[in-house]
Amino acid sequence: MKAYLAGPDVFRADAAEIAARRKELCATYGVEALHPFDQALDGLAAHDLAGAIFRANIAMMREADVVIAELSPFRSPSADPGTAFELGFAFAAGTPVYGFSAAAEPLFERTVGGVSRDNLEVLPDGRLLHADGLVVEDFGLADNLMLIEAITASGGRFFTSAGGPWAAPGGLDPFEACLAAASKRLAFAAAAEPPTHKKTAGTTHG
Amino acid sequence: MKAYLAGPDVFRADAAEIAARRKELCATYGVEALHPFDQALDGLAAHDLAGAIFRANIAMMREADVVIAELSPFRSPSADPGTAFELGFAFAAGTPVYGFSAAAEPLFERTVGGVSRDNLEVLPDGRLLHADGLVVEDFGLADNLMLIEAITASGGRFFTSAGGPWAAPGGLDPFEACLAAASKRLAFAAAAEPPTHKKTAGTTHG
Repeated sequence: MKAYLAGPDVFRADAAEIAARRKELCATYGVEALHPFDQALDGLAAHDLAGAIFRANIAMMREADVVIAELSPFRSPSADPGTAFELGFAFAAGTPVYGFSAAAEPLFERTVGGVSRDNLEVLPDGRLLHADGLVVEDFGLADNLMLIEAITASGGRFFTSAGGPWAAPGGLDPFEACLAAASKRLAFAAAAEPPTHKKTAGTTHG
Repeated sequence: MKAYLAGPDVFRADAAEIAARRKELCATYGVEALHPFDQALDGLAAHDLAGAIFRANIAMMREADVVIAELSPFRSPSADPGTAFELGFAFAAGTPVYGFSAAAEPLFERTVGGVSRDNLEVLPDGRLLHADGLVVEDFGLADNLMLIEAITASGGRFFTSAGGPWAAPGGLDPFEACLAAASKRLAFAAAAEPPTHKKTAGTTHG
């Protein structure tokens, strides 16, 4: 089983260590991790690099049985747009998507900060306007509805750090909670498949 | 020809007017606009609404011949994550994607603001660290590479308002520049198709 690890960890200074740690954890669950940070693109000129990274990430996603995406807020109240793109790609490709975040609060609370609902302007159509002049999504979800609903619709799960409605059970690290759920599901799906390979092998050897 | 209009305009107070204006413009190009703001979801309970919007947007994207996505910065230096998701979905579904933005500058400059490159920390692997503790993508692109490279790889175009390297030609509104390019391309593709329908019609009448 192969899992593509999407997320903004590639933008952290210690990206290589985070990737190594997560890949080791995947291995303990019998999962091969495909990680954007692993690409061997050293020889490329700068102007070719973006396209090469794009193609390598797309190829890894096509190879993956599952995508585990970190949706921790990135320079905004929401997930990073590269990860959001990859969630959309995976969902369209029929790949189950799992999500996790370090942020425990729903998107609405993260966006408005300490401002109470009563202090937000209500538009004639009922939507709530933030002080930044933009409407705040108010569905009680952890991030933009397209991201969270795609996880649900694909049969995936979403977990956060402790303290909110989506806290991983037993105080588990939310990435590991995704990994555990995804590996269990895919092992079950593999076991439930008709044993066509075994039959073919039997014919060949018999 | 049908175009799905993705973008953060749904989060603006005047979302309905923006949608109406863009749909009218589409009609002048012979394009039927499919817009997230058009859904008839009035009767739904709040807890069903997010899922219903998700499913309606996915259905509209599947119906669309092209996606035209607004990537204007949304509560961050980047596009809104819902639009990024939809770009990923469309690309995986084989739908050409066009993008536009009100921001003329590349992502790097938008992220670091007025800070010069010399004042950024260079990590041992060459990446540039912003004062926020996160690496800044530095490919000279208008947004996260996954978004921009997907537009290019799908054969689409990206245009911004005046003042930067991707300014729409002739001072055209960047949405209209996308619309013009997309409608031209799809009209050409339709004209280049073998005339199988005409032959069938001829047989029937002859």
